[in-house]
Amino acid sequence: MNVSIIVIGDEILIGQVIDTNSGDIARMIEPCGWHVNDVQVVGDNASHILQAIDRAFESSDVVLTTGGLGPTKDDLTKTTLCQYFGGELYENADVLENVKEVVAKRGLKLNDLTAAQAIVPSSCKVIQNRVGTAPLMWFEKDAKVLIAMPGVPFETQQMFREAVLPLLLEKYNSNTSIEHRTLLITGWSESRLAMEINDWEDALPSYIHLAYLPKPGLIRLRLDGTHSDNDFINKELDKYRDELIARFGKDVLHPDDLTPPEILLHHLNRLGLTIATAESCTGGNIAHQITSIAGSSSAFMGSIVAYSNDVKHRVLGVHNETLDTYGAVSLQTVEEMAQGACNVIGTDCAIVTSGIAGPGGGTPDKPVGTVCIAVKSPRGIVSAVHHFPGNRSRVIDRATTTAIISLIHELKKI
Amino acid sequence: MNVSIIVIGDEILIGQVIDTNSGDIARMIEPCGWHVNDVQVVGDNASHILQAIDRAFESSDVVLTTGGLGPTKDDLTKTTLCQYFGGELYENADVLENVKEVVAKRGLKLNDLTAAQAIVPSSCKVIQNRVGTAPLMWFEKDAKVLIAMPGVPFETQQMFREAVLPLLLEKYNSNTSIEHRTLLITGWSESRLAMEINDWEDALPSYIHLAYLPKPGLIRLRLDGTHSDNDFINKELDKYRDELIARFGKDVLHPDDLTPPEILLHHLNRLGLTIATAESCTGGNIAHQITSIAGSSSAFMGSIVAYSNDVKHRVLGVHNETLDTYGAVSLQTVEEMAQGACNVIGTDCAIVTSGIAGPGGGTPDKPVGTVCIAVKSPRGIVSAVHHFPGNRSRVIDRATTTAIISLIHELKKI
Repeated sequence: MNVSIIVIGDEILIGQVIDTNSGDIARMIEPCGWHVNDVQVVGDNASHILQAIDRAFESSDVVLTTGGLGPTKDDLTKTTLCQYFGGELYENADVLENVKEVVAKRGLKLNDLTAAQAIVPSSCKVIQNRVGTAPLMWFEKDAKVLIAMPGVPFETQQMFREAVLPLLLEKYNSNTSIEHRTLLITGWSESRLAMEINDWEDALPSYIHLAYLPKPGLIRLRLDGTHSDNDFINKELDKYRDELIARFGKDVLHPDDLTPPEILLHHLNRLGLTIATAESCTGGNIAHQITSIAGSSSAFMGSIVAYSNDVKHRVLGVHNETLDTYGAVSLQTVEEMAQGACNVIGTDCAIVTSGIAGPGGGTPDKPVGTVCIAVKSPRGIVSAVHHFPGNRSRVIDRATTTAIISLIHELKKI
Repeated sequence: MNVSIIVIGDEILIGQVIDTNSGDIARMIEPCGWHVNDVQVVGDNASHILQAIDRAFESSDVVLTTGGLGPTKDDLTKTTLCQYFGGELYENADVLENVKEVVAKRGLKLNDLTAAQAIVPSSCKVIQNRVGTAPLMWFEKDAKVLIAMPGVPFETQQMFREAVLPLLLEKYNSNTSIEHRTLLITGWSESRLAMEINDWEDALPSYIHLAYLPKPGLIRLRLDGTHSDNDFINKELDKYRDELIARFGKDVLHPDDLTPPEILLHHLNRLGLTIATAESCTGGNIAHQITSIAGSSSAFMGSIVAYSNDVKHRVLGVHNETLDTYGAVSLQTVEEMAQGACNVIGTDCAIVTSGIAGPGGGTPDKPVGTVCIAVKSPRGIVSAVHHFPGNRSRVIDRATTTAIISLIHELKKI
């Protein structure tokens, strides 16, 4: 089944807010064998919204809209949908009850504007929003369905999964399975990898498609399989994935679609090891990436973000002599930081960075993008100098991912 | 002038990658008085790409596409554009030279697949990509323009600003100014704020529009002004912004569109103060947010991410008695962590968090979302318990922003 998504909001069009709702929805409908045909982003403008609905219904049976349901004047979605599907706006008593509950849970008082969230078109079936004040609305026309959802990401994510998806599953039976396998490969450029497996890719059956998803420091290879027989397509995908694993051996960072921090925690837990980070140029981002994973406290104990040399020396125990002789961005310094992090935090492993994220601070010897990375594991300390292209945030991202991958490579050998 | 953006790539439609290019472009064209009319996201599918181009040209004079220009088989944009605009594919010698240079800079060898990036439609004018291998392509048809750009965000961002935007400015003169003012307000819900300024908003002139952009812990109020006279609209916007500032006084976090970490650094630099963070549940994210700002090393010295109680005690000096009596998530603990952070890192100020980000770890007394925040400034230590709704990443985000804002409020009083 085809699904079209319409994202409504001036704030998206002018680039003040990034749309994450369409991706969240896509990931949730994929296991049902449904497919997002297209996403349209339009402003808070009635004629644009109406045109987008017409276009979406051309290609899809189900249209999902997000946004434009707030209580303020700039939000027009509700009146526009009433115009499109007919009926009139009225105050729904059940919605009002729900709005009162949500507002009370937030410790706030109900005001007139929030109460107006209970006004809905008579042409829709209301789906109560348990986690926000804007009700979800289910419209039907000519055997097609449009569901209007709020723009706040966590509300849409939670209510789509809990309430909308079950209703869609009830209404639409899917008889095509779409399954995926994703491998993470390191140490290859996209084009070199594509040449290496060109013949293999050409020989893939028509029901399997290969996609390349390059990320800083790694490439995700995704096999998409589409077939009426779910067992068959899963077996086929496993077979072709195993062929890739056999071919790329140690360059396969992981045979499933996990993120580098998830893979790192998997190996730390497997080995019963603990970890700390000592970060200069990544400024806490490695610790943040690791602690974003639920359950990370089983292995992650803490970090020292040592931005100044004084902190590198006093807290992590890097010798002043080392800093003076080799500089803060040197293999000698990051190796001492790695030992210091394990000592101070009391862990088995450490991930360490020191570099020049830019835009300032570069020298001819150590230009912006130079990052020294050290990792300590039961195998000892390993360190290397890297040169990452791009602006400050890109250097921080690349250094973060590369540092995490460096330790994964060490732990895989144990 | 209206601009339409077409984002091409299966990886966006299935939610594996989030599109940030359209927002980047929107922010860059806004100062020119141009307007993104709509964004369409379509898969790597020739007929969908062709349909999207037709639709885009219906509403806009300029169409920008991103993505689908990679060297691998799943990328179809180039052949599809050749089909749409006519001509034939040929190898462009200048592009080949450029590809060789880019590849050499990355320390890689040129292979056949990367060399094929030099094959372009004869119907386009090539814009060399200084930072990647996929050339940008400028097509014209019936006095309208389509520019195809790569999907890699930093390539698109840099090449659009450096090469595409100047060419567009040369071709199109704008005689309408669109200007903005953004205020950050804390301590208000969106609906309460909207009611408070309802009459004021109704009385705004037709050339000024107010938008509400709620973010976790704060609301951005944006005034958009559209007028042929640039001086006039800037004066008008300043006037209405000043009225809002006069009305909301201390709840105005900042009178410009800065992020909370930028505002924090502004005040630290203004006062000549240094800062450390001591983070438990935010796991380094506060340090990461601060160090993402270029120049943050003027004030930011370092952090202790104290995930385990052992690190809170040994490194930050929190008394075991305090941890035993009140628990790690308590005002007593975060206040001792604040003092410890300033002592250990050697700073004037500190931002501290300890809480339960979930999904596990909650108790009846301290459910998931409970976060204790302390800030230390020359005014002393201030602490409070907060309860944030949502999942792990939302709790971390809310706690990060709230903690930064807490210290800003203290520094504003100095």
